[in-house]
Amino acid sequence: MSTTVQARTLQGMRDWLGQRARLKQWVIGELRETFELFGFEPLDTPAVEYAETLKGKYGEEADKLIYGFEDRGGRAVGLRYDLTVPLARVVAQYPELPRPFKRYHIAPVWRAERPQRGRYREFTQCDVDIAGSDSSLADAEIIAVVGAGFDRLGFPDYTVRLNSRKLLAGLAGWLDVSGERTLSLFRTLDKLDKIGWEGVLAELGERGFEARLGDELRALFERTDLPQSSPDESRRVLRSLEEQFADRPLALEGIAELGQLLDAIGPLGVRAGTYRIDLSMIRGLDYYTGPIFEVAVEKPKIGSVASGGRYDNLIGIFSGRAVPATGGSFGFDRIIDVIEELGLEPRGLGGTVTQVFVTVFGPETTGASLALARDLRAAGVRTEVALTGDRLPNQLRSAGRRNVPFVAILGPDEIAANEVVVRDMASGEQTRLPRATAPATLATRLGIPSPSAVPSPAGSRFEARRAGPG
Amino acid sequence: MSTTVQARTLQGMRDWLGQRARLKQWVIGELRETFELFGFEPLDTPAVEYAETLKGKYGEEADKLIYGFEDRGGRAVGLRYDLTVPLARVVAQYPELPRPFKRYHIAPVWRAERPQRGRYREFTQCDVDIAGSDSSLADAEIIAVVGAGFDRLGFPDYTVRLNSRKLLAGLAGWLDVSGERTLSLFRTLDKLDKIGWEGVLAELGERGFEARLGDELRALFERTDLPQSSPDESRRVLRSLEEQFADRPLALEGIAELGQLLDAIGPLGVRAGTYRIDLSMIRGLDYYTGPIFEVAVEKPKIGSVASGGRYDNLIGIFSGRAVPATGGSFGFDRIIDVIEELGLEPRGLGGTVTQVFVTVFGPETTGASLALARDLRAAGVRTEVALTGDRLPNQLRSAGRRNVPFVAILGPDEIAANEVVVRDMASGEQTRLPRATAPATLATRLGIPSPSAVPSPAGSRFEARRAGPG
Repeated sequence: MSTTVQARTLQGMRDWLGQRARLKQWVIGELRETFELFGFEPLDTPAVEYAETLKGKYGEEADKLIYGFEDRGGRAVGLRYDLTVPLARVVAQYPELPRPFKRYHIAPVWRAERPQRGRYREFTQCDVDIAGSDSSLADAEIIAVVGAGFDRLGFPDYTVRLNSRKLLAGLAGWLDVSGERTLSLFRTLDKLDKIGWEGVLAELGERGFEARLGDELRALFERTDLPQSSPDESRRVLRSLEEQFADRPLALEGIAELGQLLDAIGPLGVRAGTYRIDLSMIRGLDYYTGPIFEVAVEKPKIGSVASGGRYDNLIGIFSGRAVPATGGSFGFDRIIDVIEELGLEPRGLGGTVTQVFVTVFGPETTGASLALARDLRAAGVRTEVALTGDRLPNQLRSAGRRNVPFVAILGPDEIAANEVVVRDMASGEQTRLPRATAPATLATRLGIPSPSAVPSPAGSRFEARRAGPG
Repeated sequence: MSTTVQARTLQGMRDWLGQRARLKQWVIGELRETFELFGFEPLDTPAVEYAETLKGKYGEEADKLIYGFEDRGGRAVGLRYDLTVPLARVVAQYPELPRPFKRYHIAPVWRAERPQRGRYREFTQCDVDIAGSDSSLADAEIIAVVGAGFDRLGFPDYTVRLNSRKLLAGLAGWLDVSGERTLSLFRTLDKLDKIGWEGVLAELGERGFEARLGDELRALFERTDLPQSSPDESRRVLRSLEEQFADRPLALEGIAELGQLLDAIGPLGVRAGTYRIDLSMIRGLDYYTGPIFEVAVEKPKIGSVASGGRYDNLIGIFSGRAVPATGGSFGFDRIIDVIEELGLEPRGLGGTVTQVFVTVFGPETTGASLALARDLRAAGVRTEVALTGDRLPNQLRSAGRRNVPFVAILGPDEIAANEVVVRDMASGEQTRLPRATAPATLATRLGIPSPSAVPSPAGSRFEARRAGPG
């Protein structure tokens, strides 16, 4: 333990400190409450899974990104790549779970990506899924809870792009594209909103598609990609797609499901103008089978902040029999970026958790300072006590630098007078408070309800227990 | 994606489902609030660290338990073994952090242990640490916040056993034991409370210590291990140790620090009778340098539920210069076991997150059911809507089985009458409510404050934002 080791984080992985750590926790808390409002239950699974659990679910490219290794028992294992495959495993492994099983899961996942802006090797996923329902209502609930999450986080503007894997399969058939070329076609089409038709047509050419195909695709979009500022306009888009694919049963099935989805999300509270049918939105993962969606923001230019869809075959890989499922995943890190860029952080996040800093004058008064800290904490006030033995002015300066709102000063004079001097660090104003009532007074000034008057907060499912320290 | 994969969890790792998942979240929430009351800030670090960051910090035995592997770039990496070494790295890596730096960290860690009851390969740690203070007040704050955590969780009985690495080093010197034999001696002494003096003396013999040494050790304990039901009695134990080790400066330093610790934890609210000086409490990890502690419960017989101590040299391994630090770690899984065995769970944990289940009568009434769900959620009621297309009696039965407190029934008659039928699932009683006010009425019956009247809950540092879904 004598040589020095360089203190460093692995590339693509991050430490969460100070304000960003508090922001992360705030976002997790808000999403958790949103998920529970919709009746989703928490789930947690191990970070490490058998390699065979992880591999072959996401597509070949993705499989290469799985952090795999051998454990001490020689088992091939890996770090989870997402939270959907662990859910599929859980649903198959515990047949006693209620059906439909609605769960949320907020946890890190790992991908051996090339690190770049906004792309990390360890990142947080926030997932909501419903397993055991093939109803479009389940897909609608997912869209609704995702929208409610962004509303709760205060996102001023976002668009839910809706599509269907069945519709896309119909589109491929209509263009007479099959097998591996389908993937190639959709990889390119997926870039439409980034590179435009010029780019798409050029890339289709490079990928060996005939010019005719690109022209047909573009013409199809021109016929069907109508403005959609109202639910009725989205329904009109579906009707025009119905006409195009009248002889394609799979596409018609996908269109009908999207119609049911539109019928349900309105009453569920998804606001008109926040969603649209978008045939060019593909989503990469292999396992989707029905409706798919992506949530995008225009400002900042960061792309997708949530996505998901229906995957009716994934659970069957584990259970041997099909269990329909649908879900959505929040792009946690991009959400943090958006919140920071648009200044959506709640007030109070910028300072410190500490609300009152109690000074320590010297050895004789230490006990009195500690007892004051104890009483403040019992009153619900987040309290720190000086630990450095610094001189009083330095203690005050340190509290000020860290934006602690109040400092409680307790010297021999105050102790003799049974008082506490409280400095409001923003105004510099100092008040003398009787020692006995100072904790309750400060709690009130900080807007903390008195312990006996605390109602069960909305969203807390438990009786509050308020023993407090000491 | 066609062959079936066995759905299974790796041995020693666990899924958290249903009630246990809710219990886990509740414990994490309570501890987090306790930590913040004491002014600790959240921190999060990556699960994967450079192998050189992890190795050589915990002792040779522990190093073997680190999950190590090579990443795609050929770097030797590993899953973190605890949360203390990542903290030490962070303190060294970010010199701009405030000093003292008080942080908490709640996250999984991984150890390639042989799985057995209560010992897992992935488990949650809840740590509180203070870096940058060499004051005994910092050690006292750790003991106080740990005690406050157990009080908050409702633990009826626990004992904080206190010792000091300096005192133990003095003891080894006094017995004329040095080098590798010290470790061997302490490994055996550590078992005193499990195997008694008979066992300890026998094992010391097996380990090659002379009988004289065992006798001296036992005699020392008989002279100093006095009853400690009050702080004064603990101070008397320290005085008797002072006499024994009068010519051992390091031991005296340790004893003096323990005396300061005793002086501070009382005013900080640690209750008399919950702690004692215990020379036979050793703690395994290499990195401790000063006071150490362990929290044990008698019922159930599960041993240590928290532990920690001062480690003044660990951060220096990364930063090149010593940064004193002290901290504590909650044995999360054992805490869960104690809560379950003693029935300390809060009320309401046994059911489901859902408070109201909204039935769906048929296609014509679906929109009305979805809109009711939307309005209930906007009123803060955790609401599920039927997704299965089951017949009404089956919907009711399913909600009943899962202990959902209320079911809202909305058929064509209710819709025509602008009403909702609400069934209290515990009593079976049904009430008709006007549709318009039903959400607010149900919210009130469930004890949910109306959105406009919600005060900032104690412990929440942010302005409540209550946009609600829709």
